[in-house]
Amino acid sequence: MMKDLLPFILTHEGISYIKDDALYILDRRKLPFERKYIVCKDYKEAAKAISDMVTQGGGPLEVALNTFLLESRRNSNLDDVVKTLSSSRKTNTTMKESLYHLLDCVRKGEDAEKAVSSLFSYYDECYDRMSSFGASLIKDGDGILTRCFAEHSFLLSVKKAVLSGKDVKVYVPETRPYLQGARLTISSLTEMGIGAYLITDAMMANLMNEKKITLYMTASDRYLKNGSIINKTGTLADAICASYFNIPYYAFALKRSSNDDYEMEYRRGEEVKQIAGVRIAPESCEALYPAFDFVDRTLISAVITPEGINE
Amino acid sequence: MMKDLLPFILTHEGISYIKDDALYILDRRKLPFERKYIVCKDYKEAAKAISDMVTQGGGPLEVALNTFLLESRRNSNLDDVVKTLSSSRKTNTTMKESLYHLLDCVRKGEDAEKAVSSLFSYYDECYDRMSSFGASLIKDGDGILTRCFAEHSFLLSVKKAVLSGKDVKVYVPETRPYLQGARLTISSLTEMGIGAYLITDAMMANLMNEKKITLYMTASDRYLKNGSIINKTGTLADAICASYFNIPYYAFALKRSSNDDYEMEYRRGEEVKQIAGVRIAPESCEALYPAFDFVDRTLISAVITPEGINE
Repeated sequence: MMKDLLPFILTHEGISYIKDDALYILDRRKLPFERKYIVCKDYKEAAKAISDMVTQGGGPLEVALNTFLLESRRNSNLDDVVKTLSSSRKTNTTMKESLYHLLDCVRKGEDAEKAVSSLFSYYDECYDRMSSFGASLIKDGDGILTRCFAEHSFLLSVKKAVLSGKDVKVYVPETRPYLQGARLTISSLTEMGIGAYLITDAMMANLMNEKKITLYMTASDRYLKNGSIINKTGTLADAICASYFNIPYYAFALKRSSNDDYEMEYRRGEEVKQIAGVRIAPESCEALYPAFDFVDRTLISAVITPEGINE
Repeated sequence: MMKDLLPFILTHEGISYIKDDALYILDRRKLPFERKYIVCKDYKEAAKAISDMVTQGGGPLEVALNTFLLESRRNSNLDDVVKTLSSSRKTNTTMKESLYHLLDCVRKGEDAEKAVSSLFSYYDECYDRMSSFGASLIKDGDGILTRCFAEHSFLLSVKKAVLSGKDVKVYVPETRPYLQGARLTISSLTEMGIGAYLITDAMMANLMNEKKITLYMTASDRYLKNGSIINKTGTLADAICASYFNIPYYAFALKRSSNDDYEMEYRRGEEVKQIAGVRIAPESCEALYPAFDFVDRTLISAVITPEGINE
């Protein structure tokens, strides 16, 4: 049932698949205006695609699993494969841990096809459980702010809440510079028949003040041992405003990290100076692009994991 | 001296001027890529230009004064002129009050040329005084966040602080949807030789957390009797984050309102769905554009007026 609820870009086919000994990755940078796949011949090209942001959020994980499968069929050096893919996005520890888990399985003599397939099923079950917890935290009449593209757990939470008869609206910040909110989240919600409004990145406080936004929900790129999270730039501002207005903030996390280490990823400031290829600021100006925010646990009401709701 | 410090777009010539019985308004929507003037034959066209956002911030005030002058030379019905111009931007009460002041002067037999000229001088002096107060509140080593295009008072404050030997950096949110930060503020700071970084609209909390931003300064569209202000969308989020990190917030205001009334301007959501004419979200999606934020006085450290610093 879960798969029927998902928008196309969150189905396995809508993320990546193997065909004719090559890996196809849906290029999220072109969405929603163009449905184009990037074709990768090997793990090096797949790692480059991940690093180039062809896919993001939960996308790199699925790409990594498929790439591992493809390379295992070729009897490639899987140590190299896992090492290269793991370093393609520093912040994505779920991808890294899954790859090392697969490497372990294969070393222990397990069939790669079976190991990858069971990992895919495991994550599907995780999303299903997390979204049931998420839906239980959404109240009738809620206006939900999100940030970036919170994918399966968030979209399924909202869909399950709506299916159970709750009246819900979603407020979607465009999420500059890559515009994942404008390009992915609002399209997915529209495709799923859920009422949603696009806003710019700093309008959330206004709508909280007007009591239109009553709940905040995001994914998390990392869930630290101490309870804090790392997520897309803008999440900290949202969380601080939510806290100021006594609005609950729930983050989704597949896994809790075993430590509190994190490394902040700064991307090229040049990316801030343009929008969809159009220059918006003078060539000569400087720009900063801190890609992720650290959100202190005191700002988080609870973190929703496959195992339960951690308050 | 003050005029030599200003960037071109804040000089009188860079805002609007009268030539050949017509009013020229610099089109801020095209900046910094094109320096183009809109020519208005009469007050109706000038009012339309203001309403179409050809100029904004302090621009409409100067356009209104020049339009009043132009129409007084033609012996037009100045009641109609004042009424039409006043209603071209609901939130701009300084423009409205200045126009009614001029109408009063003329009714009392004062020469229109003299009345307009003395009002221009009055505002120049105001900016000079406010920026001296502003500069006194900037500390050596400060990283200053601003929002939108805070114009004369802010830019001159920073310039005076730098001239007095203080090391200062400015962090400029792009300010979607119109991108005044990316197009006007960062260009002006660069032209003035002040170190500045462009960021997207929700990155401020991250940079406050990193202690890069240590001060917040904006203009204000209205300064209410109760001490709260109305300013560009995003200001409330900034102010809440500043308060959370114990960062002072100073707003500039030419005048304090005699009451606490305000009307919130919602603009067309369509404007959020595009950037510089490029569509960023699906045609079918809905969008909201609350154009201004109400910022409660408890979030404001002080308001800087021509008369002094109101804590």
